[in-house]
Amino acid sequence: MPQTARTDKPARPALHIAERFLKELAQIRDPKGGVRRDSYGDGEAAAHEIFRRFAEDIGLRWHVDAACNAYARYDGADPTREFIIGSHLDSVPAGGNYDGAAGVAMGLAVLGGMIEAGITPATTLTVMATRAEESTWFNASYIGSRAMLGTLAPSELDEVIRADTGLSLGAHIRAAGGDPSAIRFGAPLIDTQTLTGFLEPHIEQGPVLVADALPMAVVTGIRGSFRYREASCAGIYAHSGATPRSARKDAVVGTALLVSAMEDYWQKLEATGEDLTITFGKVFTDPAQHAFSKVPGRVDFCLDVRSASRETLDRVHDELMRQAAAISQRCGVRFDFGQRTGSEPAVLSGDIASALEASCDARSVPVRRMASGAGHDAAAFAAAGVPSAMVFIRNENGSHNPDESMNFDDFADATEAVFDFCLNRLP
Amino acid sequence: MPQTARTDKPARPALHIAERFLKELAQIRDPKGGVRRDSYGDGEAAAHEIFRRFAEDIGLRWHVDAACNAYARYDGADPTREFIIGSHLDSVPAGGNYDGAAGVAMGLAVLGGMIEAGITPATTLTVMATRAEESTWFNASYIGSRAMLGTLAPSELDEVIRADTGLSLGAHIRAAGGDPSAIRFGAPLIDTQTLTGFLEPHIEQGPVLVADALPMAVVTGIRGSFRYREASCAGIYAHSGATPRSARKDAVVGTALLVSAMEDYWQKLEATGEDLTITFGKVFTDPAQHAFSKVPGRVDFCLDVRSASRETLDRVHDELMRQAAAISQRCGVRFDFGQRTGSEPAVLSGDIASALEASCDARSVPVRRMASGAGHDAAAFAAAGVPSAMVFIRNENGSHNPDESMNFDDFADATEAVFDFCLNRLP
Repeated sequence: MPQTARTDKPARPALHIAERFLKELAQIRDPKGGVRRDSYGDGEAAAHEIFRRFAEDIGLRWHVDAACNAYARYDGADPTREFIIGSHLDSVPAGGNYDGAAGVAMGLAVLGGMIEAGITPATTLTVMATRAEESTWFNASYIGSRAMLGTLAPSELDEVIRADTGLSLGAHIRAAGGDPSAIRFGAPLIDTQTLTGFLEPHIEQGPVLVADALPMAVVTGIRGSFRYREASCAGIYAHSGATPRSARKDAVVGTALLVSAMEDYWQKLEATGEDLTITFGKVFTDPAQHAFSKVPGRVDFCLDVRSASRETLDRVHDELMRQAAAISQRCGVRFDFGQRTGSEPAVLSGDIASALEASCDARSVPVRRMASGAGHDAAAFAAAGVPSAMVFIRNENGSHNPDESMNFDDFADATEAVFDFCLNRLP
Repeated sequence: MPQTARTDKPARPALHIAERFLKELAQIRDPKGGVRRDSYGDGEAAAHEIFRRFAEDIGLRWHVDAACNAYARYDGADPTREFIIGSHLDSVPAGGNYDGAAGVAMGLAVLGGMIEAGITPATTLTVMATRAEESTWFNASYIGSRAMLGTLAPSELDEVIRADTGLSLGAHIRAAGGDPSAIRFGAPLIDTQTLTGFLEPHIEQGPVLVADALPMAVVTGIRGSFRYREASCAGIYAHSGATPRSARKDAVVGTALLVSAMEDYWQKLEATGEDLTITFGKVFTDPAQHAFSKVPGRVDFCLDVRSASRETLDRVHDELMRQAAAISQRCGVRFDFGQRTGSEPAVLSGDIASALEASCDARSVPVRRMASGAGHDAAAFAAAGVPSAMVFIRNENGSHNPDESMNFDDFADATEAVFDFCLNRLP
């Protein structure tokens, strides 16, 4: 229960703070369109600097941990208990402004509203901006939150390389002002014993809420994945007009047959109700070798498979290997999938989800339950045993692109519900 | 019949000239491997300069036409009749040394051998190096020979653009020292009334002679083609993990289904004995937009379909359009094939082919008949009504790549046969 208000103003979230915060973040532009807030790079650092300024303006206590995650704290009636609202501020290249940032903006609006209304929360409430959630820059996900929770493998500091800079994760953290040696120790970077829960508000990255005409959802679980980021299909270059089909080892045909087979398999599993996505996001012949009049001798590609079910992931992986072997036989090509990475499916807190639904009812905000198809920091918190929750905000045109489009009215509805939750239903 | 020899030396082709000529050409290197003799560019010009030096050393009469095709003539007993042996000196990027150049080398060896033996041929014999045969650099084939024969459309001088330079064909011809205004007139650039035939010796670009263990073949016809050089499949970028299959417009899946469908169709036509090749030589997602965690919103690709039969080309084109429409429906993608180019299948001279086979028999060189899967300048000569012929020389690893590998013994066998043909069986 919140402490008595010092003023008579009705308690409302400070939406104007969130609006200004998001506008400033949108200025960190990518020359190719959208925003560029590169993980442990200049773009993410600029976003964290904006966060610091907003947090200090409101009067929150500022803290940065050894992995450069940022915490803006508002002490509660019981300061031995802490509830965190947060998300990440990094983006994919040429990304959208709201992916991640909307969660930090909502935290600022909730705490700003409490402070404006003179309300002391039941427990300490913290807005957190994690680092390096996106897996585009480094070959790993949830880096900041896993470092904070003590679940980042020390070897990742040396072995995980940012593709565009060629520098290790440890080198990047050091350059950003962090302390890799403290992370290498493997202990949580804050006192997780005092943590009562983690709530990550996030735009929905799929089209479900738009299709259902709902402003928000409470999330029940997060899909895990397996991924091959640097796969290839090797054939043999040959003359396009003079090489009979039987003599070809065509890497484009081999890759196309694999993509088609996996699409057909997905369609089959979907019909039985299995939760799944399969995406070949990059597919390309070699610009230094390919030509209009050559049978293509090499294709590089990546593959991202996600499901809320570990069994489904295993089944799809088996099918992938079976198809690759059959196509190699048929076309004379050779698949090399490279290093396998991925994440486990995560189950979120049913108690917090129910409390959030009660807050939606209290504020008359229509809501549904759904699984998250995308990975999120909340998955790392759940895996570390922290009771974790997410809310999704309706968003058009998907995310990870400059056209993502969150209606601020939907953000306001979701913030109302989370504000009610923080006032009345904190664990 | 050849005129009486001035010496008693037995008449043999001057293979040493061809060997040195090919060695010098191999020095025009591509930084990415192999040779770079770019059409109407520095690489092709350097090759023509080497040709000029060799031709003048032997004592041939040198001539360059308005399209920069080069002619090295040896006057015959009847100088009102002319037979041409020739091919092109340009290459694809990072190409092989023998594609095209072997034909010019063989012409030099034949005429060099006649001159060394003091033989005057029955008719004027000319070694010709055409320009811009490869279709990689400009969006058109056989440019030099078509200009020479008066069959190049004047509009091509302005509308055909070299992709890497952005300059028109006309501008490139002028920069190479030619005279586009003379070509625009549309008349043949030499007196084609005196032409008795054209013979193009060329390496085989497929694996047929290697498989049959034969040094050479006499070619009966040349495949025509239809081509889409700048096709694309447009979808919509979306989050890879959060977008259900039903809501996707995945450009990689659309393209893969098209490639797979055309591969299956080829396999079906092949079983009924139809002559065909289908090649998607370049396929690539957009490096500025694609990402590991995005459903791909665009794929660019090219397509090259070849057959000795016009009916087969039409049938495959119909199937392509049918499949593209069905896949667009299924996946929500949009195919844009861009400009269609191509060439007609060409029928070569049966009389010259028979004479060449007789020469093979006379010199005990084993030979077979076959169709050419690749396009060649001989197709332009045949289309212009010149009795035309080709011989293929066995070649490993295909062509259009740095690993093409012509055994010089096979070249010597084929040159013996062509030498006999020039001595004894000219039309």
